[in-house]
Amino acid sequence: MQTDPQGSASFSAESYFATQPAPASLDNDRQRVRAFVRRQSEQGNKVVLVTSGGTTVPLERNMVRFLDNFSAGTRGATSAEYFLKAGYAVIFMHRQFSLQPFSRHYSHSTNPFLDFLEIEHKPAPNESLSTTPEITVTPEKREDLLSVLTAYKKVHRDGTMLTLSFVTVNDYLWLLRGVSEELSEMGRDAMYYLAAAVSDFFLPRQKMSEHKIQSGKGSLHIEMDQVPKILKPMVDEWTREGFIVSFKLETDPQLLLPKCRQALERYGHQVVIGNDLNRRKFEVVFVSRIAPKKDPAHPAATNIDDDTFTESWLRLSEKDTHTREIEEDIVNELVRRHRTWMNNGR
Amino acid sequence: MQTDPQGSASFSAESYFATQPAPASLDNDRQRVRAFVRRQSEQGNKVVLVTSGGTTVPLERNMVRFLDNFSAGTRGATSAEYFLKAGYAVIFMHRQFSLQPFSRHYSHSTNPFLDFLEIEHKPAPNESLSTTPEITVTPEKREDLLSVLTAYKKVHRDGTMLTLSFVTVNDYLWLLRGVSEELSEMGRDAMYYLAAAVSDFFLPRQKMSEHKIQSGKGSLHIEMDQVPKILKPMVDEWTREGFIVSFKLETDPQLLLPKCRQALERYGHQVVIGNDLNRRKFEVVFVSRIAPKKDPAHPAATNIDDDTFTESWLRLSEKDTHTREIEEDIVNELVRRHRTWMNNGR
Repeated sequence: MQTDPQGSASFSAESYFATQPAPASLDNDRQRVRAFVRRQSEQGNKVVLVTSGGTTVPLERNMVRFLDNFSAGTRGATSAEYFLKAGYAVIFMHRQFSLQPFSRHYSHSTNPFLDFLEIEHKPAPNESLSTTPEITVTPEKREDLLSVLTAYKKVHRDGTMLTLSFVTVNDYLWLLRGVSEELSEMGRDAMYYLAAAVSDFFLPRQKMSEHKIQSGKGSLHIEMDQVPKILKPMVDEWTREGFIVSFKLETDPQLLLPKCRQALERYGHQVVIGNDLNRRKFEVVFVSRIAPKKDPAHPAATNIDDDTFTESWLRLSEKDTHTREIEEDIVNELVRRHRTWMNNGR
Repeated sequence: MQTDPQGSASFSAESYFATQPAPASLDNDRQRVRAFVRRQSEQGNKVVLVTSGGTTVPLERNMVRFLDNFSAGTRGATSAEYFLKAGYAVIFMHRQFSLQPFSRHYSHSTNPFLDFLEIEHKPAPNESLSTTPEITVTPEKREDLLSVLTAYKKVHRDGTMLTLSFVTVNDYLWLLRGVSEELSEMGRDAMYYLAAAVSDFFLPRQKMSEHKIQSGKGSLHIEMDQVPKILKPMVDEWTREGFIVSFKLETDPQLLLPKCRQALERYGHQVVIGNDLNRRKFEVVFVSRIAPKKDPAHPAATNIDDDTFTESWLRLSEKDTHTREIEEDIVNELVRRHRTWMNNGR
């Protein structure tokens, strides 16, 4: 732990894990991941870790107030469905109560399932006058529900999805490290799709107030420390061979590409997917690094700039936004790149 | 607007509404409330406003980060069901994506409805070899679902629930004022059940950052202003005759009763329901004020202490916590008190 010029503590990943407490469920979660990874390996399945939803930063130990990051979990939940469709097994690590694959189609706010269930009074089988009420599905909703339900049942039958949950940024960091270490067993066959919106700041346990912060004493002052940049140890230590995809969300279009490139430079992983808050449903950009093609005979002759990036934009046409989801294209592109990554390792 | 000794702005309700922008949906929401109140009045229904869920305090105008208050919306959603059952019409004003009456029983995380739907392949009616898949409800889940669905359909058929939503504390404050003013038309026939967990602090629009706050520049400093205490103008101006119930949630048991009494003293409304964060599912306390019985012939002889409070505790036994919900008892008690309140006004 170091103190920056402003006097606040700056945590390395190492000092973070040495000083902040692990969540109580961590050991159990790791065991579940271990068993899942073993089973999928035996069946020859590739595995993708999908992280999804925002993280909270509690301001009190008895949590009443917290800082949060905007994320309903749409990107993660939708992508998980397409990964499953593409034959991947999925570890779905999501913020508690954020959207989940399959049930996401039936948000209680926008498409409540109670609205398309009906009560039908059918005559009882013994032809008496009494009727037994039956619950049926509204005909016009039947086809869509049948398709979602069929995919859902298949995933449960095949055991190809493991669901884990987190709430705070501390839960998230510990769980990500644990899952990555377990999943690193699969080497290049594992993909990491880090779609969760993780807080950049946190309040160390040691600085938290025990009880609800009382109002009535003027304004509220909060000072938070930076969350350590965990992509670096993830690439260097936790899972050296994994195919790692991170996300950058910005609201200022000028910053999007520079921030994506900066992340690749700093952490050395495979892909950054950039998206603008207001355009994310129909436009993303894949940023990756062109590895210098070293000529083994003339190592000194390599003059391709090590910091050359490729950027490919993926856009849905306006017509398509109403009938298709951009996550289908994102996943297809990543599956293709992951295949190349695996072949390069052989 | 005044500046406190620490130099931060302190807003009165008046200066708040004069300086912070109204949400775009406000006029439309008010019109919906007006029509709803008129229809319920014609039908002789009492109306309760139930507020539910937490409010957010955005740190950026293009919201990525926000301060939030812990609340899934269980208290509000559950109570709304019991108010409907007791014959009240309900204006359910909730934080977007928080729990809602009826669908709350089928949380996607803990009781996903896809789990109790089944696909049955029944022979087609023409007795050919093809089958048409049908969606049916798992037998052991049928009775519960039928009961929830029946109540849900009845409310929709009768038009006795109006749902409104908010996200930020600013949305909430404007909407609460608007709904209260519309509902004040009903005088003593209206109840206000303020179960939402409202932030005590906010960031004035004028102080917000336009874009996502960038990390990488050391720690994060936030300074927030106090949200004006709106119960005071609510009681004095927005709805003078309404039966107003507010909630106090604390984590320190020592503070619970003093804070409840303080709220009644300051705002002069009817009931404060106090609850401890960890005991709220099975224990609450009703705090109200004993009005001094003034003798009109001898006004000076009134010597009952104006600040005498009654406290009645409501507790579920351990056995009951598994089969009953404390909101049923809370609502029954309030319906009884509201009846007295209405009679006293006649």
